[in-house]
Amino acid sequence: MTARTWRPEDPGAVAIALDTLVADVHFRADVAPRSLGHKALAVNLSDLAAMGAQPRRALVHAAHPAPSPAWEEAFAAGIGELAERFAVRMDRRPVRTGPLLVSVEIAGTFPGSAPPLLRSGARPGDLIYVTGTLGDAAGAPGGAGGLAARLDRPEPRVAAGLALRSIATSAIDVSDGLCADLGHVLRASGAGATLEAARLPLSGELCAAFGRKQATDLALAGGDDYELAFTVPPGREKLLAGAELGVAVSRIGVVERGPGLRCLDGDGRPRSVPAGYEHFATPRSTEPQE
Amino acid sequence: MTARTWRPEDPGAVAIALDTLVADVHFRADVAPRSLGHKALAVNLSDLAAMGAQPRRALVHAAHPAPSPAWEEAFAAGIGELAERFAVRMDRRPVRTGPLLVSVEIAGTFPGSAPPLLRSGARPGDLIYVTGTLGDAAGAPGGAGGLAARLDRPEPRVAAGLALRSIATSAIDVSDGLCADLGHVLRASGAGATLEAARLPLSGELCAAFGRKQATDLALAGGDDYELAFTVPPGREKLLAGAELGVAVSRIGVVERGPGLRCLDGDGRPRSVPAGYEHFATPRSTEPQE
Repeated sequence: MTARTWRPEDPGAVAIALDTLVADVHFRADVAPRSLGHKALAVNLSDLAAMGAQPRRALVHAAHPAPSPAWEEAFAAGIGELAERFAVRMDRRPVRTGPLLVSVEIAGTFPGSAPPLLRSGARPGDLIYVTGTLGDAAGAPGGAGGLAARLDRPEPRVAAGLALRSIATSAIDVSDGLCADLGHVLRASGAGATLEAARLPLSGELCAAFGRKQATDLALAGGDDYELAFTVPPGREKLLAGAELGVAVSRIGVVERGPGLRCLDGDGRPRSVPAGYEHFATPRSTEPQE
Repeated sequence: MTARTWRPEDPGAVAIALDTLVADVHFRADVAPRSLGHKALAVNLSDLAAMGAQPRRALVHAAHPAPSPAWEEAFAAGIGELAERFAVRMDRRPVRTGPLLVSVEIAGTFPGSAPPLLRSGARPGDLIYVTGTLGDAAGAPGGAGGLAARLDRPEPRVAAGLALRSIATSAIDVSDGLCADLGHVLRASGAGATLEAARLPLSGELCAAFGRKQATDLALAGGDDYELAFTVPPGREKLLAGAELGVAVSRIGVVERGPGLRCLDGDGRPRSVPAGYEHFATPRSTEPQE
């Protein structure tokens, strides 16, 4: 066990997230330990980013069938580099002998007066945005090195989440795939949406490897990107343009009253929307609760 | 992943603990799912009890090689019964397919003005106490049903921990064995101690199964009891006697200036002190930090 007391740096609510990543379930058993360390903390940082929280403290457990100093050193380097970059104080227990797994708990605070980002706040007329590019992680197995880095070493959008707390009406991180995760937001908000496929942000590398059509499919359905999808009332678009998000954002659709998720092709014709995407990561619980 | 926001019920510091229990490492793979659910939350509640915290919110993940509704129902009943009894709000993710494991994060608060219990507060002259009886869990494999219940369904000493915050100078829960855990306290406090073996609280069932001599060995070295060991200045013994701890306590020794842990037999002769006890549970991190 690992336990600590912690005096939250800001008053009010705190954010807490737990991720348990198990080999062959959530990641490939042959993943480099440095990447595993990075990813285990990154997915938790992404959970906090989707709430608009400032990450503060983490507890980390790991097990390996045959732990070696070299493995542990690389794992610790991967997780430590990210913790340092985001100023997260981390208590890490020595690696134990057991099935390959990592369990990370992370706690954060909400600086300023804006409330936490919820999944339930999207309103008809809100514009749907997403950070960065989509589909890269899903394209990693068939693509080149840059895509693999997106899968193995995702970049949590912490600064964007913090800034969006006073701008966005809802947010979620894209770990199960854009359509699946947007579906969580729309159901929680009692709304629907239409996406414009031509507006999806695609990396040059993904288009080069798969062509634009398949890249669009990957962007709609692929998971593990850890970008933020969020909704913004039209009157706040100028505020969004001036915010320090640390990453580019793209407007990809609009929230509507009618339930369900629709998608239009470049020529305005309806195209099919992929069903939920079963990937390495685990399904979401319901709305993070207070 | 599971994430939530949480508005702590009391101002000031919060307590956070993380336990990841893996089959064949921390528990027997054939354990009844109801007992596993109980134990997974109980060990985390015990972590908080040792800090003197009031448990509030828990996040729970579990995996099973072939999850069935019956297994999940029994697991949920075991963990739910304990959560309800201690008024812990729990977010539990559905059981996933994977190696048999449970990961629990728990958060608590510190009602009132007394500071959290630390491991580092023991001072020479303080009296050493322990709750309940010791050695039962270690005697379970060779003993009868009551001892097995102590191993599989430990009772976290939450009320005692809360009351001790204004009485004790240090506390720890006995999960690695009395001598090993007391060693953590003494090292953190820069002190030593002498225990009186004849004062160790032994259950009638343990003595009947093993005889008094071997029962004493189990009480000194056996882990998994999840009782609290704590230190009290002599001037506060009356306060202790009047406190609502919810469990009997026994005075078993005294903190001394000289480093190291000594033990006296009933006739006052030194007896050997067992070395650290390698058991199912994981070694402690250093002092829970703020």
